[in-house]
Amino acid sequence: MANIKSDYLCRKMQVFTKHKELIYQAVESIANRIYHSVYSDNVKTYSDELKEKGLAAFQNRFNMDFTEHHIKSDVWVGEEVSPYLQTGLGIRYPVIDIEKIIENAQSAGKTWQKVGIEERAGILAEALERIESRFFELAHATMHTTGQGFLMAFQAAGPHACDRALESIAMGFSEIKRFPEFVKSESGAGRNASSMRKTYNPIPRGISLVIGCSTFPTWNSLPGIFASLITGNPVIVKPHPKAVLPIAIVVAEMRNLLKESGLRMDTIQMAVDTSDKPITKELAEHAAIKLIDFTGNSKFGNYIESLPKISFTEKAAINPVIIDSTKDIEGLVNNLAFSLSLYSRQMCTAPQNIYVAASGIKITGGTVSFDDFCDRLRKALDDLLQNKWGPSTLGCVQNDTTLKKIKDISLALGSKIAEAKSFKMPEYEAARTQSIKVLGLDSGKQEIFQREVFGPMVFVVKTEHTEKSIELALRGCAISGGITCLVHCTDFVLSKIIEEKFNAAFVPVSFNFTGQVFVNQHAAFSDFHVSGGNGSGNGSLVDPGFITKRFVWIGNRYMT
Amino acid sequence: MANIKSDYLCRKMQVFTKHKELIYQAVESIANRIYHSVYSDNVKTYSDELKEKGLAAFQNRFNMDFTEHHIKSDVWVGEEVSPYLQTGLGIRYPVIDIEKIIENAQSAGKTWQKVGIEERAGILAEALERIESRFFELAHATMHTTGQGFLMAFQAAGPHACDRALESIAMGFSEIKRFPEFVKSESGAGRNASSMRKTYNPIPRGISLVIGCSTFPTWNSLPGIFASLITGNPVIVKPHPKAVLPIAIVVAEMRNLLKESGLRMDTIQMAVDTSDKPITKELAEHAAIKLIDFTGNSKFGNYIESLPKISFTEKAAINPVIIDSTKDIEGLVNNLAFSLSLYSRQMCTAPQNIYVAASGIKITGGTVSFDDFCDRLRKALDDLLQNKWGPSTLGCVQNDTTLKKIKDISLALGSKIAEAKSFKMPEYEAARTQSIKVLGLDSGKQEIFQREVFGPMVFVVKTEHTEKSIELALRGCAISGGITCLVHCTDFVLSKIIEEKFNAAFVPVSFNFTGQVFVNQHAAFSDFHVSGGNGSGNGSLVDPGFITKRFVWIGNRYMT
Repeated sequence: MANIKSDYLCRKMQVFTKHKELIYQAVESIANRIYHSVYSDNVKTYSDELKEKGLAAFQNRFNMDFTEHHIKSDVWVGEEVSPYLQTGLGIRYPVIDIEKIIENAQSAGKTWQKVGIEERAGILAEALERIESRFFELAHATMHTTGQGFLMAFQAAGPHACDRALESIAMGFSEIKRFPEFVKSESGAGRNASSMRKTYNPIPRGISLVIGCSTFPTWNSLPGIFASLITGNPVIVKPHPKAVLPIAIVVAEMRNLLKESGLRMDTIQMAVDTSDKPITKELAEHAAIKLIDFTGNSKFGNYIESLPKISFTEKAAINPVIIDSTKDIEGLVNNLAFSLSLYSRQMCTAPQNIYVAASGIKITGGTVSFDDFCDRLRKALDDLLQNKWGPSTLGCVQNDTTLKKIKDISLALGSKIAEAKSFKMPEYEAARTQSIKVLGLDSGKQEIFQREVFGPMVFVVKTEHTEKSIELALRGCAISGGITCLVHCTDFVLSKIIEEKFNAAFVPVSFNFTGQVFVNQHAAFSDFHVSGGNGSGNGSLVDPGFITKRFVWIGNRYMT
Repeated sequence: MANIKSDYLCRKMQVFTKHKELIYQAVESIANRIYHSVYSDNVKTYSDELKEKGLAAFQNRFNMDFTEHHIKSDVWVGEEVSPYLQTGLGIRYPVIDIEKIIENAQSAGKTWQKVGIEERAGILAEALERIESRFFELAHATMHTTGQGFLMAFQAAGPHACDRALESIAMGFSEIKRFPEFVKSESGAGRNASSMRKTYNPIPRGISLVIGCSTFPTWNSLPGIFASLITGNPVIVKPHPKAVLPIAIVVAEMRNLLKESGLRMDTIQMAVDTSDKPITKELAEHAAIKLIDFTGNSKFGNYIESLPKISFTEKAAINPVIIDSTKDIEGLVNNLAFSLSLYSRQMCTAPQNIYVAASGIKITGGTVSFDDFCDRLRKALDDLLQNKWGPSTLGCVQNDTTLKKIKDISLALGSKIAEAKSFKMPEYEAARTQSIKVLGLDSGKQEIFQREVFGPMVFVVKTEHTEKSIELALRGCAISGGITCLVHCTDFVLSKIIEEKFNAAFVPVSFNFTGQVFVNQHAAFSDFHVSGGNGSGNGSLVDPGFITKRFVWIGNRYMT
């Protein structure tokens, strides 16, 4: 018996010790906010064996039931369709009764809550290592559910998602370690002297529901999952019915690791549903659900925020670009074309409205006219597609609805459309592709551009002057939120004014991006993702509140 | 011109340098959570001159307009009544139009936001020093508005409130200092190498409304005021119309200091109203108000929480006492009698329901029966009143409504009332006093004891056994919230079970308090006040969220 106990303690220590340096480095990187990345996003650094194993694992899944969660069920569902093949994957996932899922979570949560913070951090870091071994399977799974190109699917679903998950672990670790577990407190003197023992317990809020989206099923879900788990809450993941596989793989690794660690698999569960019979509202409104992480449209996000729960939302955004002046017009256009092309503008951070003054863009020794800029942008978008890596930069459009909405707007606008050439995806004859439509508009057409348009369409808005561009961009952010704002401006004073105005509206600004740095990209440990202060969402990856709202400090006092 | 600039910079530095050690010590105390107090709560440590000056200053206020805020107004109102004298104080305060107050706050906020965190911290610490010079005036003002005894009025309104305000300053200082203002970030290598400058700006949420209560006008308002100010938000204080003077004095000192510092006085303003024409809802619902701190009844608190704002509430609570067993029955009874007597049970932390098993309380070598315990408690309450300091421990009942509600419940219960002897307040013939009514009840009478009863009445509930006591106490906390829970139990295992159950309901537990340590008292820097996890409120003094919710981190990026 003594041996079992000491083995157990030993294991608890080991898992933390193994990942201690990783965690402390992450804690430090969060504080310093310098560039930090743990999981390599360079495909070349991985072995061919891993790559082949990943592809094979994915291919073996077609038309099979997903049994890795060790769930017994009479009902299995699945409706994922590859945007590359436009055929169903045929993978089915087990359905569990909602009350049973809640019960499982409650029961597993009781055990998980009692696992010390070191062991929790160790196990969660270990989980990321396990997930890392399946990055290539994840990449293919993500590619064939979201439509992302292979490289983005690899980077976003694997290393970048895991970096952000580690950020949650580290922020949680430092917040829970912030106060001592125990103090002896002496106060007063003489007759009034007293001595007390005090404990400080970070009590988890309760069951956490993480609602996934169809475009970034792991990147947008892992931060919330790991934030809830590190703070002691059990998690139920409700994936988008069209993008289940990537997160199912993650959950499988985590459940297996929990089991190995002598803990309850149900500390993390997956609740699947179908487009016909969605269960999200029923889950979200369940009294036992205390925390909700949500990524998706603003209407549903506003509903989630209205529930008497603690929510972390990421909703729609109209991300503006204001182009006033530049020292490198070519660099500007190429950088912007790439930002717009990335995953066919299905990134929450992608620019939508590009504001250019009627007088054009000031460049060294002259100006680039509005029309000239539109031409250059269209050409850059076309040129990009001519590259070998072009089509996979755009990837596929995740679903028909996105495509339909884009077409409807095009039709409504009549003939004013400037569209990049259409393209085919190499190796995938049936792929749902769409080149980026560039629409030039007058600033009066606010009913068109002042709402979120998701997918391969971008507006170039002609304004009276940069001040008007600023005003319209701020208005868009006020109406529908803004996650990013890209500004090209060589005037220091004007740049400061723009920064101040957007920051006051809780929108971060990126200035003069050219080269290989894109406004779409937010790096874990360094960049906050979504400010939490405007309509684009109330959560921020990973600010202190993303962690501290998930538990309550309770101080007990004992007379000694 | 150069000299003016350097003088200005010098002053900015000076105010921080002066208080630097104080602030850093406070930051450290928060992290360590050991006993820490900056402002002496021992009246003896203050000079007679200060005491006399304070009393005189208060006495000179009768029937005068309060002009210290330098506000011009055509309308002056005031309806404060001393619970000791039961006559009006005759002090009037200037009324400002709501839109004008909002405008002032917006305008002053723009300046305040730009004051650096060091200078803000320095100015706010300096404000506490200025307030300290008026502790005795504050004590009398608090005594004659709230009805507190002199010592409590002195301690709570002055030193303890300032300790908690300093806690807010320090927590704000460390949260804002948590991330660098500026980093140079390098990422990638070779062709993909990039270099960026990044800034991290803590942007204040907006105008902060702090709604005061009639019983602790400064203690309950200062933490929110200082938390909002340290994070850069302008503040509007809406005091309870019956308890304006104490906070008016604080606001006056702060406005004068702001003016002296070359800043805008309107960074903090007071919005007064009358019981007949309350303005709280209009203010709270104003679109420009982004943060609300509230102390008061649950109904209004729930309304505040329902607004689409960031709120920090402290509402009603049914604080339970569970008495299972003790090694010191006399110490237990005396300690409890004092806790109940303190300000005639008008503290939010005061016990309301005392649960004792029908089989009595286990003591060394025997038991104390339920009836015996009730007798002992009543006697202890009577004995306490016999002390020279007895009446001022109870102080006065703040208002007639409290007294009326207590009487109504007594009448409704018929003859079962065990009341401590009535008492007179020395020197104040007209004082509104009421000794503590002790009501013995069966556990079936939940309709009576499972709701908050505020004021000099306490229920001793006879239960089948301690398990039932626990169940009922938890139920009360679930229905109406619990800020504190006092437990007397000598059984280690049972104590652990109780702790776990209450902590799971987000209620902190204090064990076996005897002597000079009381469950009502929460010490700044060491004890959290209100957990924020149950119905007694959603804010916690001063946990990290009490600060971080008041601003948004915005990261800007600049290509270099």
